Amino acid sequence: MKHNIDLLLTNAIVLTMDENYTKFEPGGLAIDGDSILAVAPDKELINDYQANETIDCQGKVLMPGLVNAHTHVSMTLLRGLADDLRLDVWLLGYMMPVERRFVSPDFVRLGALLGCAEMIRSGVTCFADMYYFEEQVAKATAEVGMRALCAQTVLKFPAPDADAFEESLGAAREFIQRWKGHPLIEPAIGPHAPYTCTEEILRATVELALEFDVPIHTHLAETALEVENSRQEHDMPVIPYAKKQNLFDAKVLAAHCVHIDDGEIHTLLHHGAGVAHNPSSNLKLASGTAPVKKMLDTGLNVGIGTDGPASNNDLDLFEEMRLAAFLAKNATGDPTSLPAPIALAMATRLGAQALHFGHLIGSLEPGKRADLILVNINNWHNIPHYRRDENSIYAQLVYAAKSTDVTDVMVNGQWLMRDHRLLTLEEQGLAEQAHDYARRIDAFLIEREQSVLSKLLAIGGATEGESFEVQVKARIPDPKLVLTALEKPEIEILYSRHYHEYDSYFIFDGSEQGSLRYREDEYIDEDGNISNIRYRLTLIGQQRERHYPNDVLLSRSRYLAPAVHSLRFYREYFKPTHEIFVEKDRLRWRVLYKGTEFYINLDRLDQPNLGYFVEVKSRTWSRRDAEHKAEVSTDLILFLGATPEDIIVEEYPALVPPTS
Amino acid sequence: MKHNIDLLLTNAIVLTMDENYTKFEPGGLAIDGDSILAVAPDKELINDYQANETIDCQGKVLMPGLVNAHTHVSMTLLRGLADDLRLDVWLLGYMMPVERRFVSPDFVRLGALLGCAEMIRSGVTCFADMYYFEEQVAKATAEVGMRALCAQTVLKFPAPDADAFEESLGAAREFIQRWKGHPLIEPAIGPHAPYTCTEEILRATVELALEFDVPIHTHLAETALEVENSRQEHDMPVIPYAKKQNLFDAKVLAAHCVHIDDGEIHTLLHHGAGVAHNPSSNLKLASGTAPVKKMLDTGLNVGIGTDGPASNNDLDLFEEMRLAAFLAKNATGDPTSLPAPIALAMATRLGAQALHFGHLIGSLEPGKRADLILVNINNWHNIPHYRRDENSIYAQLVYAAKSTDVTDVMVNGQWLMRDHRLLTLEEQGLAEQAHDYARRIDAFLIEREQSVLSKLLAIGGATEGESFEVQVKARIPDPKLVLTALEKPEIEILYSRHYHEYDSYFIFDGSEQGSLRYREDEYIDEDGNISNIRYRLTLIGQQRERHYPNDVLLSRSRYLAPAVHSLRFYREYFKPTHEIFVEKDRLRWRVLYKGTEFYINLDRLDQPNLGYFVEVKSRTWSRRDAEHKAEVSTDLILFLGATPEDIIVEEYPALVPPTS
Repeated sequence: MKHNIDLLLTNAIVLTMDENYTKFEPGGLAIDGDSILAVAPDKELINDYQANETIDCQGKVLMPGLVNAHTHVSMTLLRGLADDLRLDVWLLGYMMPVERRFVSPDFVRLGALLGCAEMIRSGVTCFADMYYFEEQVAKATAEVGMRALCAQTVLKFPAPDADAFEESLGAAREFIQRWKGHPLIEPAIGPHAPYTCTEEILRATVELALEFDVPIHTHLAETALEVENSRQEHDMPVIPYAKKQNLFDAKVLAAHCVHIDDGEIHTLLHHGAGVAHNPSSNLKLASGTAPVKKMLDTGLNVGIGTDGPASNNDLDLFEEMRLAAFLAKNATGDPTSLPAPIALAMATRLGAQALHFGHLIGSLEPGKRADLILVNINNWHNIPHYRRDENSIYAQLVYAAKSTDVTDVMVNGQWLMRDHRLLTLEEQGLAEQAHDYARRIDAFLIEREQSVLSKLLAIGGATEGESFEVQVKARIPDPKLVLTALEKPEIEILYSRHYHEYDSYFIFDGSEQGSLRYREDEYIDEDGNISNIRYRLTLIGQQRERHYPNDVLLSRSRYLAPAVHSLRFYREYFKPTHEIFVEKDRLRWRVLYKGTEFYINLDRLDQPNLGYFVEVKSRTWSRRDAEHKAEVSTDLILFLGATPEDIIVEEYPALVPPTS
Repeated sequence: MKHNIDLLLTNAIVLTMDENYTKFEPGGLAIDGDSILAVAPDKELINDYQANETIDCQGKVLMPGLVNAHTHVSMTLLRGLADDLRLDVWLLGYMMPVERRFVSPDFVRLGALLGCAEMIRSGVTCFADMYYFEEQVAKATAEVGMRALCAQTVLKFPAPDADAFEESLGAAREFIQRWKGHPLIEPAIGPHAPYTCTEEILRATVELALEFDVPIHTHLAETALEVENSRQEHDMPVIPYAKKQNLFDAKVLAAHCVHIDDGEIHTLLHHGAGVAHNPSSNLKLASGTAPVKKMLDTGLNVGIGTDGPASNNDLDLFEEMRLAAFLAKNATGDPTSLPAPIALAMATRLGAQALHFGHLIGSLEPGKRADLILVNINNWHNIPHYRRDENSIYAQLVYAAKSTDVTDVMVNGQWLMRDHRLLTLEEQGLAEQAHDYARRIDAFLIEREQSVLSKLLAIGGATEGESFEVQVKARIPDPKLVLTALEKPEIEILYSRHYHEYDSYFIFDGSEQGSLRYREDEYIDEDGNISNIRYRLTLIGQQRERHYPNDVLLSRSRYLAPAVHSLRFYREYFKPTHEIFVEKDRLRWRVLYKGTEFYINLDRLDQPNLGYFVEVKSRTWSRRDAEHKAEVSTDLILFLGATPEDIIVEEYPALVPPTS
């Protein structure tokens, strides 16, 4: 007596990807509703089942759908926005400013639809996501019929969907309550990373995850810098720190884990955490090479992710499988490392287990959901076929097959693609909407990049504000002239300081841009020791408001900000036409002279070696005040020992001789 | 007055890939005959030219065809034959035995046609090849209409197409004479590598290359082992050694260059040598990471190659471009290294220059040949489009585009593919012929792998031959018993030896296989020093011919061979079910006893610690002689102090306790 079922797939090379790597050829699947009833050789299936529909797979490979273990699918809309940049410039200079401005529910939905279309086409049936407005990702994915772990991002900074983390946390709770139990979507919470969260946030997300028994999806140990900072701030690397915040009490999916040691691998194993390895992203951002072979040998569930398409730049898991195998060989110096069957297991069974979906998907086994793909292995790049080695078929899929060889995709018993045709997604209009976003974002960035000031403001690098300053400067043959003058009764010294200053000036084409000065200021105490260091960024307007007699200048628009990033960051972000470096020793006094407050700088230029200069400066608020101070400044600088002929108008960079 | 020409391509995003990375959008090309007349914005073209045919490129990218700078195209037929193996096992255990048996003119032609089909589909218009029967590659390529540098292989070993190198050299001369001046094929000579050639061969190939002004295509510094061996044998690394043989007097295309230092890079630059970087192959075989950024910064022409599809496993230059960019970022720890425009230049202009074809192809410039492709950048994985950054279009091609996005291919003014359809290649039948080769090669290897002996013979590891040996062995409580007996007048000692032996036994499932012993034999001289070390491989038949009274054994079929490869090689090649290790100290005497010659071994088993054994052995050639010697052996072993109860039949591995 035959069982009556919905669907029979026959005449395939079936790779079950179960723990024994069972294969059937020719073989197939018996599917009823959303689930697999049987996987077996054709003869057995035909003998046991009567199906409403029988599909001849024509010798294609029938295997579990691929699991993309880590992505930010809506960033598909930011693909190609900025490439070949360092992580900080890319993230802080481009991604975050654009996200702050453009990421909306509409953006997230459109990006998710585009990403789902791309993933279905390349054989992905399930993905682990983390983004803002994650509700929209869940909705779009469920509509399209794909499976996903959807994590609502929580972090300590204001986000496109929340001004404070309490808001994201509340949104996450509601999101989880709405979606928990959905047949395709597993809601989750996504504390972005230990370094972008506080201990309070981490602990709160763990509590929420435990309350609803949902996974935590997070980034751990992506870069060496992250680990170094964790050691400095917390006296321990990233995994122990996360453990200390109880993170691993929840079901964790940890993306990257590039910089972790043996002990940390065992911590992850002990707590059943899954890992998402992201080969392309780690290579493209030069984050390093994750110890994947060691993680696998230890028994960790390591899946493969594409990461977001803004750092990849696509969602192609065939590429990632191949790269995972290649990288492990390169890293261990052993070409037998991470052979093809393991790479394919990472993209299927191990990935599903890393998402804590191992009971549902990841292999073709009775009782699991019918998430599967058909792959044509008869294209030009994939012939001939060798079959002597039982692993040849896996090598064929990992080393030669392309995502475009995937012809058919089913999720939860529903076809999403037949013969390259998407069935559940209205493609029309999506591309045009995406191009429209790109045009608007391009315009936003182009406008921003027209001036150094707006680029500076875009990274939160300055508060806009104006100040007027009267300034006069002179070469001085001997510093003792100034020191002697300062002892005279005409001058009252309010306070004095000693600095050693390293100034990098970024010079831009087009004088209207002004120049940007990155200053490292060493405070020298009375014993001659460095007591503090301050980093400051100053945008110096090239235009002078007025030029008073005796070369007294009125300058305007100096935007000051603490320099929170490195010189290297600013260099790569602002891309100056050229750079000028000045090192000087500065004695600085605040004085009263003729009833007016002035700053006096006595500078010794060490690099280049240009001798001594004296500067007299005074802040001012009105033109009249400025005219008055201009006059007194001139008196003062002459009083300090300068002669009228010594007065110069140039800023220091203009005095530096050009280098070859 | 408009010029009359053959073809106008318009409405494209034209990436000329010239030295200034000139772009036109919308723009196109004016083509007459085999050459480019003009590359310009549409308006200009339409104004200046009257074409017999005008093709609207519909906003696709129009760029130079890709140059695959290193491959062995006919190895397409060996794709997937053996994967996830070390270079030596892969090469010596699989590739070379199969090549010796199957590579013929027919094989080379078929492989070349298949490979050309795959390359055209993925946008490659020109490739640099090196193989046997290169005449066939040249013929097939010219028929298909692709461009190639075809190098006839020369090496010191017998090759599929030559028993000795003089033969290959003669064939190369004739090949060059026949093809020199062909519009599509540049003949060349391919000394395989310094370590597979002699100095005489290298110098002879240089002379030939200079005589006909053709390039030399070779492998240089692919692995660290190659460099180490070069240092040991020649006291210098690979590039200086090649230079010493005058190699760089010719126009050289050097594949790999993974392990070269700054000085060697400058040597290559000084002599105008081109380099072919092979990212996938180097990763898959774990050869290391070539210093590509340094080579490029120094000014070398570095192209990108796929290497043969047996080690890649495909001919996809889009994959290789992306990998080249990724690897350089990873190797330097700097994601700004090798940005997308440079990666694309490597696959076009720089590759052409590496092949010494820079005057002909590599960029879209007036006067160059019309070798070009159209790429559709509107597929799902490649939207949206950002254009703020002038490099975005390159990033789109390198990081997101796929080879399957190539829609049209032209070489030398002739279309080879229009809208994904191959025009110059009769695809019918090729696949079936390829599958037929694969089936035959599979059968050959399956037969070979049925026995350890045939696998041993396949790698030239043994000469087949039989020997019969009578053997009796006994535990002995005290070695002094034997030493004392040897001093008695009944025994005449012919000579004595002292060894320390490290034996690794490979054990296989199925007792009929016998076991394979890898022995490291240290000769200990009279002063107790190691005077020599010998490595031997012995196939020990498990079957005993006869078992005489008193546990005297007659054994047969011990195939002996010097072990020229490492233990690790044999382990990976033979894949034993398990391994047993025995370390022993052996005193060995050749003696006369009762008029018969015997070998006596007094063994102290150190690992595992099993105490002392004495063995009496004698070679024999007839059953009668064996019966006689069996009797005398028993006498002798008892004479040496053993008791009948101490006699055992097991080989040492059988005495080793199993480990967990």
